[in-house]
Amino acid sequence: EPSASNTQGWLLHSEDGICALPSISAPKDAMWFDAQGSPGVDIYIVHTPQPMQMPASEPRWPLGAGAEVVVTMGRPSDDVDDHKVGWSCKGEVPLGFSFSCDIAEVSLEADTTRSGTVQKKVTDKRNWTWGPGGQGAVLLVNCDKDDPTSKTMDNKDQRVQTYKDLRDMSLMVLRTRGPGAVFANHKLVLHVSGSDADKVGVFYAHSEYSAFLGLPLPRNERPNEHTFYVEGLAFPDADFSGLVSLHATMLDTSLKSLPETPIFTDTVVFRVAPWIMTPNTLQPLEIYVCSFSDNTDFVEAISNLAQKTRCKLTICPELENQNDSWIQDEMEFGYVQAPHKTFPVVFDSPRNGGLKGFPKSILGPDFGYVTREPLRKGISSLDSFGNLEVSPPVKVKGKEYPLGRILIGSSFPRVGGRRMTKVVRDFLYAQRVQAPVELFSDWLLVGHVDEFLSFVPAHDRQGFRLLLASPSACYKLLKEKQEEGHGKAQMFEEEILADETLRKENDYFQSCIDWNRDILRQELGLSPKDIIDIPQLFNMKDNQAEAYFPNMVNTIVLGKDLGIPKPFGPIINGQCCLEEKVRSLLEPLGLTCTFINDYFTYHEWQGEVHCGTNVLRKPFSFKWWNMIP
Amino acid sequence: EPSASNTQGWLLHSEDGICALPSISAPKDAMWFDAQGSPGVDIYIVHTPQPMQMPASEPRWPLGAGAEVVVTMGRPSDDVDDHKVGWSCKGEVPLGFSFSCDIAEVSLEADTTRSGTVQKKVTDKRNWTWGPGGQGAVLLVNCDKDDPTSKTMDNKDQRVQTYKDLRDMSLMVLRTRGPGAVFANHKLVLHVSGSDADKVGVFYAHSEYSAFLGLPLPRNERPNEHTFYVEGLAFPDADFSGLVSLHATMLDTSLKSLPETPIFTDTVVFRVAPWIMTPNTLQPLEIYVCSFSDNTDFVEAISNLAQKTRCKLTICPELENQNDSWIQDEMEFGYVQAPHKTFPVVFDSPRNGGLKGFPKSILGPDFGYVTREPLRKGISSLDSFGNLEVSPPVKVKGKEYPLGRILIGSSFPRVGGRRMTKVVRDFLYAQRVQAPVELFSDWLLVGHVDEFLSFVPAHDRQGFRLLLASPSACYKLLKEKQEEGHGKAQMFEEEILADETLRKENDYFQSCIDWNRDILRQELGLSPKDIIDIPQLFNMKDNQAEAYFPNMVNTIVLGKDLGIPKPFGPIINGQCCLEEKVRSLLEPLGLTCTFINDYFTYHEWQGEVHCGTNVLRKPFSFKWWNMIP
Repeated sequence: EPSASNTQGWLLHSEDGICALPSISAPKDAMWFDAQGSPGVDIYIVHTPQPMQMPASEPRWPLGAGAEVVVTMGRPSDDVDDHKVGWSCKGEVPLGFSFSCDIAEVSLEADTTRSGTVQKKVTDKRNWTWGPGGQGAVLLVNCDKDDPTSKTMDNKDQRVQTYKDLRDMSLMVLRTRGPGAVFANHKLVLHVSGSDADKVGVFYAHSEYSAFLGLPLPRNERPNEHTFYVEGLAFPDADFSGLVSLHATMLDTSLKSLPETPIFTDTVVFRVAPWIMTPNTLQPLEIYVCSFSDNTDFVEAISNLAQKTRCKLTICPELENQNDSWIQDEMEFGYVQAPHKTFPVVFDSPRNGGLKGFPKSILGPDFGYVTREPLRKGISSLDSFGNLEVSPPVKVKGKEYPLGRILIGSSFPRVGGRRMTKVVRDFLYAQRVQAPVELFSDWLLVGHVDEFLSFVPAHDRQGFRLLLASPSACYKLLKEKQEEGHGKAQMFEEEILADETLRKENDYFQSCIDWNRDILRQELGLSPKDIIDIPQLFNMKDNQAEAYFPNMVNTIVLGKDLGIPKPFGPIINGQCCLEEKVRSLLEPLGLTCTFINDYFTYHEWQGEVHCGTNVLRKPFSFKWWNMIP
Repeated sequence: EPSASNTQGWLLHSEDGICALPSISAPKDAMWFDAQGSPGVDIYIVHTPQPMQMPASEPRWPLGAGAEVVVTMGRPSDDVDDHKVGWSCKGEVPLGFSFSCDIAEVSLEADTTRSGTVQKKVTDKRNWTWGPGGQGAVLLVNCDKDDPTSKTMDNKDQRVQTYKDLRDMSLMVLRTRGPGAVFANHKLVLHVSGSDADKVGVFYAHSEYSAFLGLPLPRNERPNEHTFYVEGLAFPDADFSGLVSLHATMLDTSLKSLPETPIFTDTVVFRVAPWIMTPNTLQPLEIYVCSFSDNTDFVEAISNLAQKTRCKLTICPELENQNDSWIQDEMEFGYVQAPHKTFPVVFDSPRNGGLKGFPKSILGPDFGYVTREPLRKGISSLDSFGNLEVSPPVKVKGKEYPLGRILIGSSFPRVGGRRMTKVVRDFLYAQRVQAPVELFSDWLLVGHVDEFLSFVPAHDRQGFRLLLASPSACYKLLKEKQEEGHGKAQMFEEEILADETLRKENDYFQSCIDWNRDILRQELGLSPKDIIDIPQLFNMKDNQAEAYFPNMVNTIVLGKDLGIPKPFGPIINGQCCLEEKVRSLLEPLGLTCTFINDYFTYHEWQGEVHCGTNVLRKPFSFKWWNMIP
């Protein structure tokens, strides 16, 4: 009695186009059955567990408790009743009938294969998986500003400002196929769950591009495609995994006295792309530096480096920087990436010094902006982004970090002390693709990781070296020079070696750095050969460390070119022995060292070249969705 | 000049016992070097990339830029200076010296291999990995109450009440080995990060068991083990991944004028065990039911089932249940599991009817309690736990759910409507091991998934069948009976088949169930043969569905024994044709059907047997950490 199943009129399956027939009562003495489909209808007889297509030459099938008939259609029907299934049983009283088999298709499609274009007929759109064999579509937080007249990011409005704005969004297509009569009695709604409503924006190309969710789609029989543009509204964070599901539901509206009946829902899941940081080993594109009345020489030195390395140079003028030199601390450059689009995003630190308005001024077409501010004002120096770095790609005990690991400084492992604010740490952890490592930087007065570590590119090993500030390497060097007979000739060498307090303090600083070295070796999978000790002394101020002479690890790294704070060390044979030592350590790697005088303009104010500059870099060629976090 | 490295005095490495020597300046004309260790010291010369042990027969090694000497010790030294490394270079002026090599060990150990006991010498304690080859220790939320005189859960206090309480906790050992003199100048601190402080409690067996974190450990040279007991304070949730890191840090306190220096930190990561639900296919242990003046027969029927299935029976008396029958809705039983301990945990629904005090009364020794209450009171009927079920283990397109998947009812896919409160949904999703599926239950007046689905055990296929309420199966049955000539003889059959409004309403209800069937097929990987249609009619009340006769899917499942609401269907040949039909569907699976009259005591109040009972079941034999979520 097939009419029972026909109460629905037709069956919808976007996934595989397969619908199972209802169980059919055959006459009790029937032993055989037969089934035929009209052209376009395929019939499979299931003999557990394998389905096999029924050959035309063998028209009869044994009836049994396990017999199952599956009817499939390669494509939806064009009209109601244009496909039929014939059915017969042979017992004492033969029984035969036929019924129509109408299939309509409602399918929500996106770039689930990460090819850059919308894919049809993907089997599993509900699951998002990582890795080279993974699948699932990607959404960008539309945090740039394509319309120059707009005041804020594109994801903060409910409008599509310019055609360019659409290109930041992910395309999604709702495809409907099947008899027009079927769609006449039904309504299509595109929707998300309530908790995802503030994570995703959907625009619909009907008369104009307008925000669209939860409204019925206009009847639209031909063409049978509805095109949507989808934007992310929020980055992954402590309370947001980054996954958003979009649903298209067909509702039956034909029964006027009854509630609208959901007939079929198709779902596609997107992951919001993480914010990704760029290590020193990536190609520099643009350098940022602040200018003041007294740092002309410094700006010129940076400008020369920019020219040499073919980087764009942006100088933030005094009016805009409000006498704040620390452009490294106010922001961190990163990027977001989807198969169809990649753009840089500046992360604005909650530090908010004189430069606090600057990161927002970078916001523009295809240049995004994000920030995190703690609810209560409890910002410390550790919230500056000189305390936020990222390693080059590393492999640690078989686990790969193809985008490197974020490094932040903390009071850890001491109990108490200063620590980066939770909202920023939560944000960094939630991006997942550059699993953060917390280091111990609270022993420093300023407390930034860039005061004791840096990374430089190298052709061999893992493609880089870790530079660590090293008081013991500095003492060793100075003692060697003294033993070579240069002791008295020099500036402050004699004095340093005789200063027992300074020596003890630097033993303590060395211990703090050694603790970090140990963690870095474990968490980045480094061997001693991956690490270069850069001679450096610190001295105690308010029970914390400050650089005794310009801090040479606080370097700007531009490909093979390094801009290193000029240390003003003892001059031996007309050469600064500290510069000479650093050159001997770095030049064999193919690096070029330029020593920049930052003494009175930066060093005396507790910062150096790295703190006073910032670098926008080229994104990784590696796509983040191909990693397994 | 080895003294530079000796400023630290000694080197600590719990991980692999390997320490690298500092780079040593050899005389410029030296071509060869040699190194020897005293007994217990092994010396490796690294010829990139493989280290090889240095044979005694070949005493000289070529000096080169890449030469690296690694000194290892199989075990920590007993005394300062009892192990030495000798070193010599041969140039024009031979140079030789020796230095001592003291190793101390600080190691934090837990049951990282999930064997039930603490493991020594595990290489990677910082990463927690899922799956059969995974590693990482497990923590239980100590949410039971081992002391009968206590008022609340054991994790709410800062004391160890009884010895039993310790057995709920995970053992952790801080092992220190090495020269006593080394430890005399140092302090050991056990600590967690600030954000984990409310997730984990640590007790220390010193003079008595006391809460311990962030305090220096007492000097404790022999025995060299500190034993801790660790308890979870919070379940995984939207803002808590479940991972907690515990750190032991050794601080150098010898330099009185300087801050304490962290020398070494060892870290072990725990995952808080999730709350796990138990599907109908697991063995029942105890049945819960409420008694009233008028449900004696019902309680007796349940009592008989309990006796037959050898389940304990707990009857909640009227005084305690305050006339609330719906013990299924007030709570859900689950369990928590660690390698060393497993105990049941009752999840108290935010519904809070007359039974609201009952779940807390179950709290006791080795019986835990958890609840989630929304901040603002906005509870709907969908927050009752009749709307929270779990499937048996399933495999979906190659992905395994060895603990099944949680099923909750929602207004989805309709926009708006009632939905389970966010705090409960967040909790369920955060457990990760039974990935929830949201179904559409808002079409029902009460709105619970247990009104249209249930699972029963089976020996074949995936080990179960899904039962779905089916209006169309019911109409089909009644029509068959009518055609067989039984139409007039029966109670309300004639009447039903003639009622066109009821027919249309049930077409609508069937569509709602079919939508769920489609989602269930996709999300649980079911084939049509995994599903059994149980004849059932609904009727419209306030534009929503209520059961027209006792709802047969609302069944208590106790192994092979089912307690099914007695449907009071048409009597044909002395038998209820609905009962007969259900028996014919279920008995071939080896199930025994007992029909229980719940008409006036439950059915007329919008519930049935399942709603009026609750079952505590045996945990899965499968360990949750062996799955990959």
